[in-house]
Amino acid sequence: MKNIAIIGGGVAGLSAAIYALRANVNVTLFEQFGLGGLVATLDKIENYPSYPSIEGWELAQNMATQAKQLGLKQTRQKVLSLTKCDNGFCITTDKGQHTFDAVIVATGTTHNKLGIENDYIGKGVSYCATCDGNFYRNLDVAVVGSGNSATKEALYLADICKTVYLVANSELTGEQKVIDALLAKDNVQLVYGTVSAIGGESEVQYIDVFADGATTCLSVSGVFVAVGSTPATDFVKVEGLNMQRGYIVVDDRAQTNIKGLYAAGDVTNGPLKQIVTACGDGAKAGLFAASYSKTVK
Amino acid sequence: MKNIAIIGGGVAGLSAAIYALRANVNVTLFEQFGLGGLVATLDKIENYPSYPSIEGWELAQNMATQAKQLGLKQTRQKVLSLTKCDNGFCITTDKGQHTFDAVIVATGTTHNKLGIENDYIGKGVSYCATCDGNFYRNLDVAVVGSGNSATKEALYLADICKTVYLVANSELTGEQKVIDALLAKDNVQLVYGTVSAIGGESEVQYIDVFADGATTCLSVSGVFVAVGSTPATDFVKVEGLNMQRGYIVVDDRAQTNIKGLYAAGDVTNGPLKQIVTACGDGAKAGLFAASYSKTVK
Repeated sequence: MKNIAIIGGGVAGLSAAIYALRANVNVTLFEQFGLGGLVATLDKIENYPSYPSIEGWELAQNMATQAKQLGLKQTRQKVLSLTKCDNGFCITTDKGQHTFDAVIVATGTTHNKLGIENDYIGKGVSYCATCDGNFYRNLDVAVVGSGNSATKEALYLADICKTVYLVANSELTGEQKVIDALLAKDNVQLVYGTVSAIGGESEVQYIDVFADGATTCLSVSGVFVAVGSTPATDFVKVEGLNMQRGYIVVDDRAQTNIKGLYAAGDVTNGPLKQIVTACGDGAKAGLFAASYSKTVK
Repeated sequence: MKNIAIIGGGVAGLSAAIYALRANVNVTLFEQFGLGGLVATLDKIENYPSYPSIEGWELAQNMATQAKQLGLKQTRQKVLSLTKCDNGFCITTDKGQHTFDAVIVATGTTHNKLGIENDYIGKGVSYCATCDGNFYRNLDVAVVGSGNSATKEALYLADICKTVYLVANSELTGEQKVIDALLAKDNVQLVYGTVSAIGGESEVQYIDVFADGATTCLSVSGVFVAVGSTPATDFVKVEGLNMQRGYIVVDDRAQTNIKGLYAAGDVTNGPLKQIVTACGDGAKAGLFAASYSKTVK
């Protein structure tokens, strides 16, 4: 039987696993942590078709259960490198080396940083309102960013915290529905500017916001950084692989320009980063990688 | 508020509706029949990520409920034509004419025919094992086709009928897992050849299979035709629209080559026709059509 590897156990990887396992190939899924990836850390999800509302952990668990029922075994190893080798692809982990006929990269993205928050990470600075919002109940917080995730984080926090300052260095983008709902909240203040400093004794107590030549100090206990993400592709050492600003370029079959190498989910250059699109792309990657693996010696 | 139309209430259309409604545009969904499309007619579905197993009608109903909770109103009119007009797109139905800023076509496909079965449709000839299989309990039936749907239909019928002849005019394609399971069944016979005649007094009693210069007569009570599908695009009268063998060509944003016109699901040239890919593409169509509609006057 042919061997394919999936790197990453988020929803794209799980969807790929479901399709590859159903196509009857051996699947090794590399994931150091729990299955479900970013989705498992999310609060309410209301846009995955078929669930009017579901918790992230539950949706992730449903997919993991489904994959396990099809025979998925998780390999809890840290992937250090992915390279092309004579008979396919080599994956080097902290535990050893493995060879595969085809590989699917589904490692997602990691949070971008402001660069000034390092001293306060875990001491008032967070990258996940759903995970940490509860620690700031009835306190004043700031959300930094202007995109979809920033507005969503702010909206989530508005129901928990006393005041939410949304600090945006440009016009808000993202879903209008979310923006409208956010701006209708009495305890949300939109502040245009750039966060120039984070301060406090051992824990966050304030941020400085610079705008129009002046600095304003906002007293806050928490800072939620939501300024985008970076694809987790450091380990990918495949010569000639087509990338775009760090994202892996795939065609409409989830295939990269390197035969046998596929990618799905947030790690790709796909134009929409949603659970259902990650799953759709994962399905393609799983099925087409399995088909491909059956055609090689 | 901007107006967008979705033509077709299958899972691609429902997913598009969910995303467009969340983006706060007016959505008119044209669907003559019940919501859920083809999926609503399917038996067990085991490859939509997050459900180890779910009935088609239930999955379809879940999506319809979700869309309705977001405000979806179904317009039960038959779409006769879609044309480009000065201020967007014109949709003519059996009840009148409507104008929209953007349109999403999600009308899916219809079953292909053998061309020799017309006298027996509903009298032993069916295009849906899940719908009609039960009428042939403990009887002998034939499934005609060699692709994924043919093998799935045969596998489904094997648990209901006495003997299932799978009549294929080429090597079986489709999911290996399904093929393996099928060939492991004692009551399934794979017959290579072409169905040259269907006969019987008022109802199906036999089929003739032609192969290698000889004709074999198989005694059957039912014939399930599974020889592919044709996209439902007859009503699309948009000049210059890029099509491929009847399917609507879209890019990775579900956008056609005509500004403001989107398509999603089985009706497109997408390489994989699955529920989750239809939903992923539907999400893109819904979101990008909504964004587009906000940019036009």
